[in-house]
Amino acid sequence: MTQPTLARSWVASANGHADFPLQNLPLGIFSLNHAAPRSGVAIGDCILDLHAALDAFDGEARRAVQATAGGQLNGLFALGRGPRVALRERLLELLAEGSPLQAREAQVLHRAADCQLHLPAKIGDYTDFYVGIEHAQNVGKLFRPDNPLLPNYKYVPIGYHGRASTVRPSGVEVRRPKGQTLPAGQTEPTFGPCARLDYELELGIWIGQGNTMGEAIAIGDAAEHIAGFCLLNDWSARDIQAWEYQPLGPFLSKSFITTVSPWVVTAEALAPFRKAQPLRPAGDPQPLPYLLDQRDQAGGALDIELEVLLSTAAMREQNLPAHRLALSNSLHMYWTVAQLVAHHSVNGCQMQPGDLFGSGTLSGPEAGQLGSLLEITEGGKKVIELASGEVRKFLEDGDEIILRARCTRDGYASIGFGECRGTVVAAR
Amino acid sequence: MTQPTLARSWVASANGHADFPLQNLPLGIFSLNHAAPRSGVAIGDCILDLHAALDAFDGEARRAVQATAGGQLNGLFALGRGPRVALRERLLELLAEGSPLQAREAQVLHRAADCQLHLPAKIGDYTDFYVGIEHAQNVGKLFRPDNPLLPNYKYVPIGYHGRASTVRPSGVEVRRPKGQTLPAGQTEPTFGPCARLDYELELGIWIGQGNTMGEAIAIGDAAEHIAGFCLLNDWSARDIQAWEYQPLGPFLSKSFITTVSPWVVTAEALAPFRKAQPLRPAGDPQPLPYLLDQRDQAGGALDIELEVLLSTAAMREQNLPAHRLALSNSLHMYWTVAQLVAHHSVNGCQMQPGDLFGSGTLSGPEAGQLGSLLEITEGGKKVIELASGEVRKFLEDGDEIILRARCTRDGYASIGFGECRGTVVAAR
Repeated sequence: MTQPTLARSWVASANGHADFPLQNLPLGIFSLNHAAPRSGVAIGDCILDLHAALDAFDGEARRAVQATAGGQLNGLFALGRGPRVALRERLLELLAEGSPLQAREAQVLHRAADCQLHLPAKIGDYTDFYVGIEHAQNVGKLFRPDNPLLPNYKYVPIGYHGRASTVRPSGVEVRRPKGQTLPAGQTEPTFGPCARLDYELELGIWIGQGNTMGEAIAIGDAAEHIAGFCLLNDWSARDIQAWEYQPLGPFLSKSFITTVSPWVVTAEALAPFRKAQPLRPAGDPQPLPYLLDQRDQAGGALDIELEVLLSTAAMREQNLPAHRLALSNSLHMYWTVAQLVAHHSVNGCQMQPGDLFGSGTLSGPEAGQLGSLLEITEGGKKVIELASGEVRKFLEDGDEIILRARCTRDGYASIGFGECRGTVVAAR
Repeated sequence: MTQPTLARSWVASANGHADFPLQNLPLGIFSLNHAAPRSGVAIGDCILDLHAALDAFDGEARRAVQATAGGQLNGLFALGRGPRVALRERLLELLAEGSPLQAREAQVLHRAADCQLHLPAKIGDYTDFYVGIEHAQNVGKLFRPDNPLLPNYKYVPIGYHGRASTVRPSGVEVRRPKGQTLPAGQTEPTFGPCARLDYELELGIWIGQGNTMGEAIAIGDAAEHIAGFCLLNDWSARDIQAWEYQPLGPFLSKSFITTVSPWVVTAEALAPFRKAQPLRPAGDPQPLPYLLDQRDQAGGALDIELEVLLSTAAMREQNLPAHRLALSNSLHMYWTVAQLVAHHSVNGCQMQPGDLFGSGTLSGPEAGQLGSLLEITEGGKKVIELASGEVRKFLEDGDEIILRARCTRDGYASIGFGECRGTVVAAR
């Protein structure tokens, strides 16, 4: 499906909207005046209430809307690509200029500012990958200067299981965690609030159709199992992490909260922003056959510009704009999303609709492209200077981190992901 | 509550039953003739159908039974200790000799052999700990002969997030996983069926009441959040694990399946088998204050005998009894279950009713007490000789692993956990 680049919407704020023009149509779950959560579509500064507009849909598109009853998108995700595409095609008609739906605007459209946004789906399992190769190299250098990338990195899409119960939508406060840390030069740990609180800039992937336990998803079929994308902030307590993570990996240093942007940007909306998997540098191994698919190599990478901003309490008091910490891109993924799905299920592991993947931190190779404070301040050795006169090595209480994403391509309407925000509050 | 040691049941098979005498009363979910799953209580060779007997319950006990509607125990787990205890007390009356319920035996009791058992709860998150210190030392020696226990081990109850979607009840076949492995002496991996398939003998813990994200569970309150216990087999693909696990821990080497015994043995049933936390060897550090509670130190450990048996296809054909691989005990846990709950939530991580913990492999210090083939065969260096004339280093297709558990104490009725079985089938 090509993007209807020139089409305009009768929702005036959608035309030229940075995130949600007619060409995006991300899906989400919202509530209004504390009523029960229900499904919607972001369009400009508004939300189309799918159930209020149900009689405008028929066939597969209607089936897609009906599958969102109950205030979560899992049922729609489970239907796979066909009904999701039918829904998009009908939405393109209904929200385009000239659609009779405009006459029912008061009934079917809400101002997004009046709505609360929720997690789009009930998450079964959450898996965090580590496929931002620049990040893996940067972090590896801090721990192993002579051997930053471990021998498995270019063969295995490295990932680990994360905590599903503490994934929250944009805007939920981030309570500074307490935990064990090992003070520099000591051999016994102390207990207290994290002193090295960090964010991680990641792409989130929502899983669509699942598989039967014991049956792998072939890489050529992976697209059927990917429902859409979001931004993901993998908040990290670096001091807790450094002490706890051996030998079984990160645990309490990550599980206090993970924030996602609430809108699910579909694979269809992102289709114009697909690129060939960036060529591996000379000498890098070819992926093993179960990770290799010609279509995926030719167009499985995503060109999404990713931005991180910091706003401190003092900056907000002084009406200073948020400080850009990084501008990166999802092309820094060493593995495609299809490769992640194929790898995760190759042992027979069951995926379920509403499972969530994180990509791992997506840093670029340059200063200004680093997706965590750990990298920017080299583990706290450097400081970031802010217009407020403050400096930062790690996050302080009151600091807000804002993630944004944007896809642009000549001849196509730009689309964005909406924001993924979280403000740090003091430890309890 | 003391155990009604001498009480006998009108269910004749319960009296002297190895696992399910009147003093146990574990909870589970069963189905009969492919009908919808419903809640039950194991009693001897039978299952009491809780909903068929609903009118025999009132007050808190009735509330407990009603909370199991829908074929999962999550709602009962969420109610916490009070209703669960009330249910147990009423069950002790109803199933004791002389109870009028006996007159309704045909209506409320099913032969367990006629029933299918299911997972007792919908699992939100599954966490696998690593608190069997003998296992940690044995495995550590294989990887780091001079430094088997890492510096954090005696301070941090080490754990990691596991895969919830592939936890299955006893009896579900174990499909041999495929994956990447690094052949000895090579630098490039190959792909194929796991050649070093192993089991791990663990205690499982079902979480009861949850907590609000951001609010830790104090160790003194942990008992309110523990619903019960089961056996857990953390099937492990050692060759996949060795190649994938750095730097973020085990992933596909574990996520293909985890098997649990289907009956939830309550904290109340285990009360007589509590012991003081075994004294730490001289020189071991005291737990940090958030992990220290006098009552827990005095009686927070569990004295459960744990057994692993192997039955190969040839042994079954020759009618040979299963071969005992290990006889161990849950007293080899370096941390109590209350310490696990306090640690897991200390960063504000949210627990939810139906979350599952694994203890980690519970090996003892002696030969004959080792909870995995990795330990018994020293990573494949030794072989196990079987009465069938076969030998094993790791599991072969057709091998069945059976876990059992038993609590005994002078003056008390013994109780057991029922079996946790799984048979390996060939890779697809």
